[in-house]
Amino acid sequence: WTNWSVSRSVLQLVVMLTLAFLARRMKLVDGQKRVPGLLSPVNFLDHTQHKGLAVAVFGVLFCKLFGLVIAPNPLPFTTDQYWIIVSLFYYPVLYFPLLACGTLRNAVGYVLGSLLSWTHFGVLVWQKADCPKTPEIYKYYSLLASLPQVCCLAFLSFQYPLLLFKGLKRTEKTTAGEDLSSSYYNDYVKNILKKKKPSKTRSESLLSALRFLFPVFTVLPVTQMALVFVASVVPTLQIVRQGVNEDIAFLLAGFNIVLSEDRAEVVRIVVHYMWCVEVCYLSAITLSCSVNLVMLMRSMVLHRSNLKGLYRGDIYNVYNCQRNIRPSRPALVCWMGFTSFQSAHICLGMLIQTIVFFLCLLIAVFLIIIPIFHGQNLMLFKVLGNMWPFWLMLFSVVVVQHVTTRFCFIKKSTGTRDLHNRGCLFLLTYLLFPVNVLIGVVLGAWRLVITALFNIVHLGRMDISLLNRNVETFDPAYRCYAHYLKIEVSQSHPVMKAFCGMMLQFARQDGAEKKARDEEEGIQLVNQEKKLQHKVSISKRARGHWQLLYTLVNNPSLVGSRKHFQPQRSESFFNGTLNWAEKEGIKKEAGKETEAGKETEAVTN
Amino acid sequence: WTNWSVSRSVLQLVVMLTLAFLARRMKLVDGQKRVPGLLSPVNFLDHTQHKGLAVAVFGVLFCKLFGLVIAPNPLPFTTDQYWIIVSLFYYPVLYFPLLACGTLRNAVGYVLGSLLSWTHFGVLVWQKADCPKTPEIYKYYSLLASLPQVCCLAFLSFQYPLLLFKGLKRTEKTTAGEDLSSSYYNDYVKNILKKKKPSKTRSESLLSALRFLFPVFTVLPVTQMALVFVASVVPTLQIVRQGVNEDIAFLLAGFNIVLSEDRAEVVRIVVHYMWCVEVCYLSAITLSCSVNLVMLMRSMVLHRSNLKGLYRGDIYNVYNCQRNIRPSRPALVCWMGFTSFQSAHICLGMLIQTIVFFLCLLIAVFLIIIPIFHGQNLMLFKVLGNMWPFWLMLFSVVVVQHVTTRFCFIKKSTGTRDLHNRGCLFLLTYLLFPVNVLIGVVLGAWRLVITALFNIVHLGRMDISLLNRNVETFDPAYRCYAHYLKIEVSQSHPVMKAFCGMMLQFARQDGAEKKARDEEEGIQLVNQEKKLQHKVSISKRARGHWQLLYTLVNNPSLVGSRKHFQPQRSESFFNGTLNWAEKEGIKKEAGKETEAGKETEAVTN
Repeated sequence: WTNWSVSRSVLQLVVMLTLAFLARRMKLVDGQKRVPGLLSPVNFLDHTQHKGLAVAVFGVLFCKLFGLVIAPNPLPFTTDQYWIIVSLFYYPVLYFPLLACGTLRNAVGYVLGSLLSWTHFGVLVWQKADCPKTPEIYKYYSLLASLPQVCCLAFLSFQYPLLLFKGLKRTEKTTAGEDLSSSYYNDYVKNILKKKKPSKTRSESLLSALRFLFPVFTVLPVTQMALVFVASVVPTLQIVRQGVNEDIAFLLAGFNIVLSEDRAEVVRIVVHYMWCVEVCYLSAITLSCSVNLVMLMRSMVLHRSNLKGLYRGDIYNVYNCQRNIRPSRPALVCWMGFTSFQSAHICLGMLIQTIVFFLCLLIAVFLIIIPIFHGQNLMLFKVLGNMWPFWLMLFSVVVVQHVTTRFCFIKKSTGTRDLHNRGCLFLLTYLLFPVNVLIGVVLGAWRLVITALFNIVHLGRMDISLLNRNVETFDPAYRCYAHYLKIEVSQSHPVMKAFCGMMLQFARQDGAEKKARDEEEGIQLVNQEKKLQHKVSISKRARGHWQLLYTLVNNPSLVGSRKHFQPQRSESFFNGTLNWAEKEGIKKEAGKETEAGKETEAVTN
Repeated sequence: WTNWSVSRSVLQLVVMLTLAFLARRMKLVDGQKRVPGLLSPVNFLDHTQHKGLAVAVFGVLFCKLFGLVIAPNPLPFTTDQYWIIVSLFYYPVLYFPLLACGTLRNAVGYVLGSLLSWTHFGVLVWQKADCPKTPEIYKYYSLLASLPQVCCLAFLSFQYPLLLFKGLKRTEKTTAGEDLSSSYYNDYVKNILKKKKPSKTRSESLLSALRFLFPVFTVLPVTQMALVFVASVVPTLQIVRQGVNEDIAFLLAGFNIVLSEDRAEVVRIVVHYMWCVEVCYLSAITLSCSVNLVMLMRSMVLHRSNLKGLYRGDIYNVYNCQRNIRPSRPALVCWMGFTSFQSAHICLGMLIQTIVFFLCLLIAVFLIIIPIFHGQNLMLFKVLGNMWPFWLMLFSVVVVQHVTTRFCFIKKSTGTRDLHNRGCLFLLTYLLFPVNVLIGVVLGAWRLVITALFNIVHLGRMDISLLNRNVETFDPAYRCYAHYLKIEVSQSHPVMKAFCGMMLQFARQDGAEKKARDEEEGIQLVNQEKKLQHKVSISKRARGHWQLLYTLVNNPSLVGSRKHFQPQRSESFFNGTLNWAEKEGIKKEAGKETEAGKETEAVTN
């Protein structure tokens, strides 16, 4: 095993050196700065690019980490704590070449990537096939736990040859700036500048951009946690259940528990009860998995609406207070850790959820369902049955309050509702005070249950705060999400990206157009009068100003990114512009745009 | 005892009959409808009146109810559940005459009230002095638990004679409508119509109105619960501690626990540990009492700001959504039960808080403080100490992220902050992924602790929701408070009350002024020209309209209470008016008021 791991590390080193040499040569040959750095594996702020490679590598890494934490001896050569810490940094480095092979976007990189992923995949499959049973938790646990890892490596082994094949077919392709040259951003801006409402494609694109980010960091923790829960308890329970014999009757009699006179009957009952516990446990795990997957869907919906809201400048709706959407130190730190935190929260959430659901199901089964089916041990029902006059009294008092309120104390007249019979109302309030205190206790217990259940169910979600609206940033997870959102919005505003893309496109066309323009200028000088030209340029400038204003009105969060932006002055200027735009009615006809543009000029100057 | 209770009931009946006879005679003699109904004990919606009597009676009632729930045999003649239910309705009726004596506001009522309260007070004090020890919980528990009740009755015994004395001094006083004729509302309106900011008296009045409502329903439950906690555990603990002898060493040895070789030493250690438990328990109770009292203060502050906000029409800020502030069936039911629910929630909150604080203190004392002082059993410290490389690693990674972010990844230029060295940022994000997952687990645990602690501390407060801002009305207690607030605001708006008070005052002055006005009219006809009079009336009407508009702008929640109010139409009209008012600048000089009034007329017509 050690030999394998050393030879694999050597292979990685060789690949990295080859890649570094390649990158250096490309830079020297092309003489351009746009060759992507080998050490910048993937652009996490790019929402249009296909992130399959990165996601697969992160998946492998997460599975390795999980194995490291769960297994009693994660590294084969040592169990020392220091080595575990070292391995936390070793694994990312180990799998880094898998990512780096894709960054050069050339055939050699893809070939190396294919080789590397095949090696990793082969080694893992061979290892698991060679010794499928391990002494950890459950004999097949290690095998089952490595399945997601095998899937990720298989995906990589398939993806690199595919990229190589695609790359051979279309050789003429820009190497960098793929994100900015995507048509998504241009479509977005066109949609904004259209008079009618933006079509649906815009939302769908946003959703598709998210499709790869969230699920990996939700589905992987959920499957791994569920596997640990099942593997660590169910096999043991089954072994114990099969081993139950008539000695159990004596054991129980030692605790003064006599389930039945017949010993075979006692065995049957105990086995049945143990089967019930097993079913409860598996149901609790299933329930907590489904809860987390549903929460994932809701997270994605909320995140999309948050992004859309912030692009539009609805800061107050998203954050419930005014915030400055600009990169800051804590925001960037939170952004760096967000996906990791998300995975960790889901693991923790599943742990708590499974325990709570298991206890609730146990109570439900052993105090409600089994007593009903067998007609014995009806303790809960007896207690509730003995208290029925009390419950009836509470219920009837509530009904009386509602009925009297409906028919005696509220009067409708001339479209308004008002109080009526105030004397009787105050009298009833006084007389029902003691009963209402008891109703209040029931209400308080209900509040406790509702609050605890809501918070436990939403523990894995970082995008909502579990605290009251006035103190929601005291929730560390929500605070992290709020910061993450700041970076995401400020760095990936579609209008800004579209602008950058256009600038790059212009720069690229510059060389080709230079000659054509020189000739054109000559013709212009001859054909056109100076006055006309002046008019056209004014109209063009006005149109530009008008479009700038329109874009800013629709995307107020961009104001902060403009050059020479001074928070106080610009904001007041911008508010002024906004007010002015609202007053004038933003939807002018197309023909009037030029005049409006002139007015804008007057306002901005 | 039974004789006493029967004779007391007979006395109550006699008092009630006398009062009823008196009320009937007053109505017949005065021939006016304004004599208050005997069955309407106190106006709970009146915020200026002194509510001492009502609060004292409610206090007595709450103590009785608490005794009923806690004591094993609350009623002396039976322990049947049905009788407890009956007594829930019996006690309010029993103490009702104490309230009713104050409603007639005349000497006979006060005399009867004094008699009645002295009787109740005397009976209670005599009872407790006669047999201070009871078999309940702790021998003096019953005596201590009745102290608040004794205080309330003593207050009543003092208050009725005082009222009688005051009533004799100033015989000329309006009997009803004391709330509406209070100067508070007029001062409020004057403050609004003044150009400068409202002075402080307005807020202080609001506070003083609240002063009597909240505390009784917080302080009483807190003291009663604390008493139950102390009385049910501390005496037993003390008895056990005093009874510890050398047998405990054998008992502990039976469980394989050997604290020391010397038996006297074992006794000393056990006694010391039991003393520690007692101290923890008492500290937990003290802590939960102080938490609840602090929460009471914060509740009062928040309630006042909510009321002020809703008077101003800031519905969105208070409710986080748009709501209709009008009485409705659920709102009125919640209003009826609010004070009872508040008391019940405080009891439940104290129970949970005491348990949680006790457990936390126990852990802190036995795992941290005692090990540090005695230098043994340092389990927690050993575990943490063994993990120090791990904690150091997590800490240093966090520091590294912050430092690199500060100095490498964020660049300030031309007043804006932007990302820098994106390649390195993405690389670091990738490399630190596994460590960040572990940091995420720590963060998640911290989130769990923070959320649980916040919710437990705020369990007794109904005025804030324990849930996320989007689902806050799922919290039954907060929903109840939100409804309660609706009724409070819609029924006690100071401007509305001032208007009602003025109307009543005018009606009262009508009779006296009729003659004077007739004479004046004759003089007017002679002295003034028709044109001038017309001008004056227009100016007066315009001024009236202007003041109406100004009042509505400052108190938008009143719009819904206007006659012929149609939600859609009026709201849009009102918004229009508001916008218009903002545009024109609401602070015109005094001289221009008349012209503005004319414009208002044009707008409203």
